[in-house]
Amino acid sequence: MAKQPTVILSEISTEAPKGIKKDDLKAETEKLVKRLGELHHLMYAEGKHSVLVIFQGMDASGTDGAVRNVFRDCTIAGLDLVSFKKPTEEEFAHDFLWRVHRWVPQKGMLTIFNRSHYEDILIQRVHNWIDMERVKKRMAAINALEELLEFDNNTVIFKFYMHISKEEQEEQLQQRLDDPTKFWKHNDGDWEERKHWDAYMEAYEYAINASSVPWHICPVDNRWYRDYFIAKTMVEALEKLNMQLPVPEKK
Amino acid sequence: MAKQPTVILSEISTEAPKGIKKDDLKAETEKLVKRLGELHHLMYAEGKHSVLVIFQGMDASGTDGAVRNVFRDCTIAGLDLVSFKKPTEEEFAHDFLWRVHRWVPQKGMLTIFNRSHYEDILIQRVHNWIDMERVKKRMAAINALEELLEFDNNTVIFKFYMHISKEEQEEQLQQRLDDPTKFWKHNDGDWEERKHWDAYMEAYEYAINASSVPWHICPVDNRWYRDYFIAKTMVEALEKLNMQLPVPEKK
Repeated sequence: MAKQPTVILSEISTEAPKGIKKDDLKAETEKLVKRLGELHHLMYAEGKHSVLVIFQGMDASGTDGAVRNVFRDCTIAGLDLVSFKKPTEEEFAHDFLWRVHRWVPQKGMLTIFNRSHYEDILIQRVHNWIDMERVKKRMAAINALEELLEFDNNTVIFKFYMHISKEEQEEQLQQRLDDPTKFWKHNDGDWEERKHWDAYMEAYEYAINASSVPWHICPVDNRWYRDYFIAKTMVEALEKLNMQLPVPEKK
Repeated sequence: MAKQPTVILSEISTEAPKGIKKDDLKAETEKLVKRLGELHHLMYAEGKHSVLVIFQGMDASGTDGAVRNVFRDCTIAGLDLVSFKKPTEEEFAHDFLWRVHRWVPQKGMLTIFNRSHYEDILIQRVHNWIDMERVKKRMAAINALEELLEFDNNTVIFKFYMHISKEEQEEQLQQRLDDPTKFWKHNDGDWEERKHWDAYMEAYEYAINASSVPWHICPVDNRWYRDYFIAKTMVEALEKLNMQLPVPEKK
């Protein structure tokens, strides 16, 4: 596998590239979202490939909105969304990848992980629940699992780091307090975790740079650019698969 | 991990070591089986470790008998037996380790795999359903999974290669044809697979020597020695865990 250039998050903008305007992108994003739906339908019908989409980011980095907007033209029967929360007692009595492996997509399916196995080397590292030796071993195990999905089940993996600025996060968290329609998303814990911002950035950088399957760093401060970025990334990769509707055998 | 000496199966006897007689071992085997039951009960109660036992061998190499005899004093509530057959349609639409990972033991449990993920680099290789590049990638994925179970879930893994001679296999398969109480086990396919004996030995040797978690080569031509060997191997390793009955907290 070709070595990726080292990612330094603080050197990557969290905003849409200069010169790109919201109104200019709107039609293009709609076209991409529609094309993603068509490609997903092809994959579902063909049943040869599968897709795993992993969203990771700080709180309020906009994964819920991305799921809502980008996949709205996908075939529901071929779509799974898995939101990983605090492990259950049964999950906790297994290795950290046990609950993850059981939900990976079968051929023909697109599965979205909203948060993922990366939490086990992010929040757990930031709070020192595990030491760096375990972080490294877990990272190697993650690489092995992701490579397995690629070579043994034709899984195309998209890993999006939702790149938000510290200021924009504050804005988003504050909106949850101020806007009655967003208040249900408020959680005191998010403000607590925010205090560990720098440690999270360090943990994310490690995870991104030690991954064998590469990450896409998605600027999310402008939500309209986020949707464009994700749809464009996925459409470009899936076009290359040259998928075809299958022709059933005549009896 | 310390490199194991290379295993060459044809240089290892399939019989009990010279000088050891069936009657001499009987009492010792019974003691070991009983002690294994005690250690298993401790592990079940303590809930800190788990055990995965993998049996692999040619047809009629005596895994069913080993399961019946060696684990008869184990606590049923803490014991799972998984017999891997031909994959279902759902299993086949996933990577080869998907169905395996979901059955690995949680803490406190002992799980026996009668056949296992190794079939996917044994029968599949012998019949050229996969090429050597895939065999090697799968072997690396197996090592990664087994190491994950060890470091992330305190799983003690025992892998037994059930070492039978070609002559003894013929004897056992013939008994299934001749003995009405064994006839239900007869399967024409076993005689077919037997024709690929040398290719199987080569595939087993690769799997054994490329494994990071070491194998135990268990001579099975004398079934009474097989039981002794398995029980002794497991008891010796489990004694080292120094397991204790837990003391519940008083409220």
